[in-house]
Amino acid sequence: MELAPSAHGRELLGRMRTFVDEDVIPAEAAHAAELEALRAAGTPHAEPEVLVRLKRRAQELGLWNLFLPEPVPAHLGVGGGVSVLDYAHLAEETGRSPLLAPEATNGAAPDTGNMELLLAHGTPEQQERWLPPLLAGTARSAFLMTEPDVASSDPHNVRTRLRRDGDELVLDGRKWWSSGAASPRCALTIVMALSDPDAPRGQRHSMVLVPADTPGLEVVRELPVFGRFEGAGGHPELRLTDVRVPATELLGGAGEGFRLAQARLGPGRIHHCMRLLGMAERALALTCTRALTREAFGGPLADQGVVRRDIAQARVRIDQARLLTLRAAARIDAEGARAARDDIAAIKIVAPAAALWVIDRAIQVHGGAGVSDDTPLALLWAHARTLRLVDGPDEVHEMVLARRELARHRPDDGGTGHGGDGGG
Amino acid sequence: MELAPSAHGRELLGRMRTFVDEDVIPAEAAHAAELEALRAAGTPHAEPEVLVRLKRRAQELGLWNLFLPEPVPAHLGVGGGVSVLDYAHLAEETGRSPLLAPEATNGAAPDTGNMELLLAHGTPEQQERWLPPLLAGTARSAFLMTEPDVASSDPHNVRTRLRRDGDELVLDGRKWWSSGAASPRCALTIVMALSDPDAPRGQRHSMVLVPADTPGLEVVRELPVFGRFEGAGGHPELRLTDVRVPATELLGGAGEGFRLAQARLGPGRIHHCMRLLGMAERALALTCTRALTREAFGGPLADQGVVRRDIAQARVRIDQARLLTLRAAARIDAEGARAARDDIAAIKIVAPAAALWVIDRAIQVHGGAGVSDDTPLALLWAHARTLRLVDGPDEVHEMVLARRELARHRPDDGGTGHGGDGGG
Amino acid sequence: MELAPSAHGRELLGRMRTFVDEDVIPAEAAHAAELEALRAAGTPHAEPEVLVRLKRRAQELGLWNLFLPEPVPAHLGVGGGVSVLDYAHLAEETGRSPLLAPEATNGAAPDTGNMELLLAHGTPEQQERWLPPLLAGTARSAFLMTEPDVASSDPHNVRTRLRRDGDELVLDGRKWWSSGAASPRCALTIVMALSDPDAPRGQRHSMVLVPADTPGLEVVRELPVFGRFEGAGGHPELRLTDVRVPATELLGGAGEGFRLAQARLGPGRIHHCMRLLGMAERALALTCTRALTREAFGGPLADQGVVRRDIAQARVRIDQARLLTLRAAARIDAEGARAARDDIAAIKIVAPAAALWVIDRAIQVHGGAGVSDDTPLALLWAHARTLRLVDGPDEVHEMVLARRELARHRPDDGGTGHGGDGGG
Amino acid sequence: MELAPSAHGRELLGRMRTFVDEDVIPAEAAHAAELEALRAAGTPHAEPEVLVRLKRRAQELGLWNLFLPEPVPAHLGVGGGVSVLDYAHLAEETGRSPLLAPEATNGAAPDTGNMELLLAHGTPEQQERWLPPLLAGTARSAFLMTEPDVASSDPHNVRTRLRRDGDELVLDGRKWWSSGAASPRCALTIVMALSDPDAPRGQRHSMVLVPADTPGLEVVRELPVFGRFEGAGGHPELRLTDVRVPATELLGGAGEGFRLAQARLGPGRIHHCMRLLGMAERALALTCTRALTREAFGGPLADQGVVRRDIAQARVRIDQARLLTLRAAARIDAEGARAARDDIAAIKIVAPAAALWVIDRAIQVHGGAGVSDDTPLALLWAHARTLRLVDGPDEVHEMVLARRELARHRPDDGGTGHGGDGGG
Repeated sequence: MELAPSAHGRELLGRMRTFVDEDVIPAEAAHAAELEALRAAGTPHAEPEVLVRLKRRAQELGLWNLFLPEPVPAHLGVGGGVSVLDYAHLAEETGRSPLLAPEATNGAAPDTGNMELLLAHGTPEQQERWLPPLLAGTARSAFLMTEPDVASSDPHNVRTRLRRDGDELVLDGRKWWSSGAASPRCALTIVMALSDPDAPRGQRHSMVLVPADTPGLEVVRELPVFGRFEGAGGHPELRLTDVRVPATELLGGAGEGFRLAQARLGPGRIHHCMRLLGMAERALALTCTRALTREAFGGPLADQGVVRRDIAQARVRIDQARLLTLRAAARIDAEGARAARDDIAAIKIVAPAAALWVIDRAIQVHGGAGVSDDTPLALLWAHARTLRLVDGPDEVHEMVLARRELARHRPDDGGTGHGGDGGG
Repeated sequence: MELAPSAHGRELLGRMRTFVDEDVIPAEAAHAAELEALRAAGTPHAEPEVLVRLKRRAQELGLWNLFLPEPVPAHLGVGGGVSVLDYAHLAEETGRSPLLAPEATNGAAPDTGNMELLLAHGTPEQQERWLPPLLAGTARSAFLMTEPDVASSDPHNVRTRLRRDGDELVLDGRKWWSSGAASPRCALTIVMALSDPDAPRGQRHSMVLVPADTPGLEVVRELPVFGRFEGAGGHPELRLTDVRVPATELLGGAGEGFRLAQARLGPGRIHHCMRLLGMAERALALTCTRALTREAFGGPLADQGVVRRDIAQARVRIDQARLLTLRAAARIDAEGARAARDDIAAIKIVAPAAALWVIDRAIQVHGGAGVSDDTPLALLWAHARTLRLVDGPDEVHEMVLARRELARHRPDDGGTGHGGDGGG
Repeated sequence: MELAPSAHGRELLGRMRTFVDEDVIPAEAAHAAELEALRAAGTPHAEPEVLVRLKRRAQELGLWNLFLPEPVPAHLGVGGGVSVLDYAHLAEETGRSPLLAPEATNGAAPDTGNMELLLAHGTPEQQERWLPPLLAGTARSAFLMTEPDVASSDPHNVRTRLRRDGDELVLDGRKWWSSGAASPRCALTIVMALSDPDAPRGQRHSMVLVPADTPGLEVVRELPVFGRFEGAGGHPELRLTDVRVPATELLGGAGEGFRLAQARLGPGRIHHCMRLLGMAERALALTCTRALTREAFGGPLADQGVVRRDIAQARVRIDQARLLTLRAAARIDAEGARAARDDIAAIKIVAPAAALWVIDRAIQVHGGAGVSDDTPLALLWAHARTLRLVDGPDEVHEMVLARRELARHRPDDGGTGHGGDGGG
Repeated sequence: MELAPSAHGRELLGRMRTFVDEDVIPAEAAHAAELEALRAAGTPHAEPEVLVRLKRRAQELGLWNLFLPEPVPAHLGVGGGVSVLDYAHLAEETGRSPLLAPEATNGAAPDTGNMELLLAHGTPEQQERWLPPLLAGTARSAFLMTEPDVASSDPHNVRTRLRRDGDELVLDGRKWWSSGAASPRCALTIVMALSDPDAPRGQRHSMVLVPADTPGLEVVRELPVFGRFEGAGGHPELRLTDVRVPATELLGGAGEGFRLAQARLGPGRIHHCMRLLGMAERALALTCTRALTREAFGGPLADQGVVRRDIAQARVRIDQARLLTLRAAARIDAEGARAARDDIAAIKIVAPAAALWVIDRAIQVHGGAGVSDDTPLALLWAHARTLRLVDGPDEVHEMVLARRELARHRPDDGGTGHGGDGGG
């Protein structure tokens, strides 16, 4: 199994690195200042000029909509045609500046997953209405899955109610962590809802396209992440009260919610994990630079054995997690997201853990600068920490993996009992 | 070595528990709302009414100024007369509501350490000017030690300059993480400065009392902790430009800065560590309650083996760290802070680590509620994380401990080579 | 709760330290050589002369049978009258030379627990037959609990069958890890057996005294521990085939097996844990000495930051585990083994883990010498590792602790919900 | 970078799996019994019949001498021509039965490294004398590097003296951990010695071929590993007293010892690491089988959450370490051992750690069976533990990695500052 980027991917990767190093990271300070000003002006979710500029630049550079393995249909937009593996490498680069680079390249969650869903399962009408603005980056979208009253680790718990009333679908319930939904640019929400409680497990839920301005869909409040309210649409809690859309807004078919959610999550988790590793690389680079330039107890921190151990451990943790993630990406390319399910569970366990470890050590080496916003480390840490919960907590992925592993050793299993197939 | 509270301490402990459970924790929501309103009004550091009320209540209950082992001199205030060990038990209770309880009982850092310094080393004039308002809780104070440009892990690096100019002391430099200094109620700062670069190591620095309104002393900016700007005076960066105070404002003697800082830190670290364990107990209690009430995969989380392991591990980590901290406290009572130096280094390593572990697991069990502010966990985590840096990073305390341990095994050491003396 | 030894205990402790340092540790090499010779002679379990000499010396020094809180009845032997707490301190010292010092002071498992059982629950006839030789150290004994075919983590699984046949008790089954039973000096075995499968859980098992030379009781094989066959009776697997003893050999009453086993385990676990910490102290002392004397990369290992971190971490892990263990010991003294049940579960989790960590790091610092028998480290490690399984694996103790912790937070719990009571 | 085996490698891999599953593992019990009998007969290092049979079988199957990337020259033997990557996959399989499979396929250390050295650096005379018996598996060899009196973590410390005396080379010194040297079949030793103390660092040592029966070369004693004396030549300590060989026995050139040692170690570390992962797979398979079949507390262990977590964590640790090791192997194939130096340092850190973690958890799940020899786990653990020391302790490899990482961030570094290149 080849894990290096293709020739095309390698070329894109070089361009992306240059873009992140020369355009994005140097713009971070201006972006922070602009966000601060927007917040002070009471419009925290307005689009910063810095981002507008970076998006334009990314489009010029052809670094736009690269997350789609299939080429974007010409009547809907541009981009795509990059394998999951190639895009994984690119996603890592965007992770080095996670507030800016993903959105600047139109590769931010949850839009990417939503666009994938629409392309794969939308009707032509649905596609033509929603995809052009999303693919152009002029509109954003939200994915309404998680709910405040139930353990979202078990997605069968989703209880927002979907019922049919004549030609309409009617939704009632509460959602939270609906990232992006507080943005004035958010045009579309995709809602996961309980459509048939009596159906067999796995067929009880459906997905519905709900325009963000639909009456009855309201932002109740915004949720901070480790105390910080984020821009770009935030992470709001929403209430859905008698929200009505035409029956044509069903996505994919009644009872298909679960199947769609599973498919949606595969590539998205690759993106998350690779971005996490980009975050870790950023933290490690900061650690090294700090260690070389900061003096204490008679020499640079880089001369201290415990700092060196941290650096070495950071390198092996990142590299291992990256290889595992790339293998999962390559498997999606080769065999599809379903076949790669266990690999994806595995990376959701290891990538956040590796990133958190590296970022935490980086914070320690930076002292006070590490916990303030003088470095991106505190922000990176909070981001990474939430990713041990987002898209399933570690514990759920561990259960998935253990079940697979045990199954291979059951007496009635036809398998060989052999372990992983190496890099194959 | 007795580690349980004395009869008097036990009585205070019961009262403190009740106060925290019945007055403080129920007031947290109102406090958060008030802070939010103060922030919106542009006065983030104004004193919330909730706090005023709690302070009054604590005074009525006799839960005031308990941090001082010696009774407070009658002409200066009330309180004190509680052993370091007894107060350690009390401090744990206040840690269960760390934004409110310490300040409500006039036991918040850095005021406690500053009052200790003034009582132990202040001239009668210094004491009479500053202690009454501090002991009454009507004024607050800051301790200006850490600097942005140097590795503060090595305190010999402090380079804010102190020079004598006639009858005046003149200060120039930069400080940061000067907790509380942004509060309008902050009346006094104690500044650690380099007074004689050519003196022997350990005698180069001095402490000066600088009224907060002295010209040239200015708040440059406030520092967020993991993105959150705290009230109660925040953690500002300060610039000192030709700051002048009368020569009588020297605290303790020229070149005494280090000695005073060491003495100041001992009990303060006990307080920090015990509060951390209170924070951990809060997190563990929340974990248990959540585990008992949240259902996933067919039963309460409390039935899951990994949750049970986390709970058991939390208990043993907290209990071990507590015993170690109480032993350090008892040793200060028996032999003084200097003799307990290694014990204090030890607790600064273990208490934050134990608390962070417990809080992190609590976050995981709470899912999205754990990273938002719907629980206090995200705040507790950020607090606890900074305490792996405040008052010396782990690495420095490890060096101290290793040096002691190695010394006992050097060939020329007269010691027995035996390990710790158990609980003795 | 006082954790330091009493005046009497302190005096014994000084004597024990001297004994271990001056008599026992210097005799280790001769003991190893003698064991080797005995093995070569085909009598691996014969008593080495070194041990005979050390036992005599310990008796002269009054360091004999100290494990019993009650004084030994005069007609049965000498010793006892040392609190569980005082003995805990002593046990740590014996752990520094775990192959010799416990047995040399007649404080080795399983004899100590067996003597406790006989003293507490034996009939006068049983006591007079078995206790004098055991208390004199002229005979040894074994405790037959664990079985090869069942998960011994759950002691209700014990299935060796006990039935009554007229005036006789008849035993059939298999046991293993029956430490000491292969010794020619082993005179007595205490067998845990299933006496009434239909009784309520907890009352199905009984204990029987079975002389080691009873027909039908045979050693099937000896079990190595990490490849090493130990002397001193080893850890054999036994078969019981129609083993018959008079009905008077029942210990404590029919169906009482469980209750007795629980009581037996309490102090024994204190001993195990304190000896583990003595082993850890030995390993830490070796680490320090090695680090000071071994040069690599231009200086002693003691100058390397990672070695210093290991040493500091070793110190805090040992000290914390010791305080927790001493607290459990003090609680047994104050409230009995039953009340201390959770504390005992806690120490069984932390003491082996702490010791293993310290010994493992010591091995690493010693390189090849650490894994060979040129140091005691490899032996210490294997000993410590088995103690994560002996007397219940970690996982069982974690379940016990978690259950207690959760119980305090159940809605119907009358408790305060407060955590541990500190050192109290 | 392709990490899967080639078509040829895949075919060999299938054959090797079958051989290990059907021939080797079923022969383990007989091998253990034979070793026991040989030990009892006083010939612990004689070749067991089981091994003779397996070697013949491996030769029939073409699973012989596969460790050599270049084809074996026809006049010297058969085998070779398998890439480092392909062989890495094969080595993992042999690691599942580490006492038998490596030697049965003539792929055991230190012979493999010695044969590589002879092929790469031997004179035709040296090759013709030593390679045929080694390649045929009729003779074995040892590599004498480590010394008892110095820190072998720093190989510049080697102090066994080599001097020229006329046409002879004369060696004096002590070596230990000279694996295999106690075997009567050991024909050749390769000795690393200090030839020119005044030469520049890196050019002070040379390698010499010393027939095992050379006068003055004597086995002083054998070293146990965690108490177990191994067969197959053991790990003896040797004394070299005026050991004389013709000057033609110098290997590779005077002062070349270091360069040769570095080159020798690269592929050898790949083999070690992959075998470790095979050991881990064996342990994980045993864990799963045990968990499915053992009942405790009302159900199979496989239903316990902590066991499931262990299994999932085992899987991700093994898979990550494997990918990293395969990447290092592929890099050796593509760029040579020198270019892969950092990758090799990385795997020496992670593979033993991963294997130890998995094996330790397997021991815990197996209880008493895990620490005895009823399972291979205790043996696997001891093997794996020594591999955190063999070929350089973790700490040295961490230093190497940290130095590289820091170098990329030094101001004068021309590099891009980018991290690893992914799977590329």
